[in-house]
Amino acid sequence: MAILVLRIGHRLVRDDRATTHLFLAARALGADIAVYSGQKDLNVETSLNKVKKAWGGSFKLDYTHSWKRFLEDHKSQGWKIIHLTMYGLPMKSTINDIRSDPANKVVVVGGPKVPSDVYEIADWNLSVTNQPHSEISALGVFLHELFEGNELLKEFTHGELTIIPQAKGKKMTRQTSTQASS
Amino acid sequence: MAILVLRIGHRLVRDDRATTHLFLAARALGADIAVYSGQKDLNVETSLNKVKKAWGGSFKLDYTHSWKRFLEDHKSQGWKIIHLTMYGLPMKSTINDIRSDPANKVVVVGGPKVPSDVYEIADWNLSVTNQPHSEISALGVFLHELFEGNELLKEFTHGELTIIPQAKGKKMTRQTSTQASS
Repeated sequence: MAILVLRIGHRLVRDDRATTHLFLAARALGADIAVYSGQKDLNVETSLNKVKKAWGGSFKLDYTHSWKRFLEDHKSQGWKIIHLTMYGLPMKSTINDIRSDPANKVVVVGGPKVPSDVYEIADWNLSVTNQPHSEISALGVFLHELFEGNELLKEFTHGELTIIPQAKGKKMTRQTSTQASS
Repeated sequence: MAILVLRIGHRLVRDDRATTHLFLAARALGADIAVYSGQKDLNVETSLNKVKKAWGGSFKLDYTHSWKRFLEDHKSQGWKIIHLTMYGLPMKSTINDIRSDPANKVVVVGGPKVPSDVYEIADWNLSVTNQPHSEISALGVFLHELFEGNELLKEFTHGELTIIPQAKGKKMTRQTSTQASS
């Protein structure tokens, strides 16, 4: 089951850090692909590419001009759509159905002004609490539930840096490749 | 067990949105108090107070000039300190000890340049993955594990707005008090 995170309506400068945090969370917590619509932002793309180079893994980042066509295309190819929204049904009542459905999934993350079409096209409108918080924490908790904690064991290969977990302080190893890339 | 989230080294403008997201996540996911150090920021405080007025609950926000003295004072009063860091021990190996310890807890959230003192003063340096992501997603996943999902059932009383969860669309009720506040 591939998991793709779609961020709608990205704005240059204003959303730079929030979208970067969102995609780093997506990557670290087991999603395979992130896609965004709105204003194209080289800052976000550069940040993500730097992290991927340093820390490894196969996470992909892409951009779409039209989130609506993107969702319709994916739906017609059998993907299911999950929309994270404080107005949706509680995660506890929906997560089992989502987990047991083998289809690839798009997880849509909007913002305060999500077009009503998103609610309609979604197979699940899902709330991680019905309180306002952050799309970043909502995505984190959702992915953690979806993968039942196994995302924390995910390995990221072909990176330059690896942390050796410590009770106190920091320990990190750096891999220096002696092979020329082909 | 009271849960307090301490954000170290807040910077005006630059961290405005990230700290607001962090504290909204803390509030929505069951923490009782948020405290920050660094530059005092009325934008963050106003945002949080607006959310509290509209959405209820007893979440408190405070500021401290010295995070170090704050941690030392709390430690001397029996609080335990958890520091969320990608360099720490995996959550899976530490969460049971944290859950079963009845002491009140401070959850310290830093940033890229946390002083080494924090690692020393912490009772647990805990990693939510050893990959870079976001303090907002890390806090979300940590609180969700700490409370074992029960935070999602938390009620927020005395607010003006309440969401009625829907499969499609948005439904919200607004409480208009007819009593003058005393």
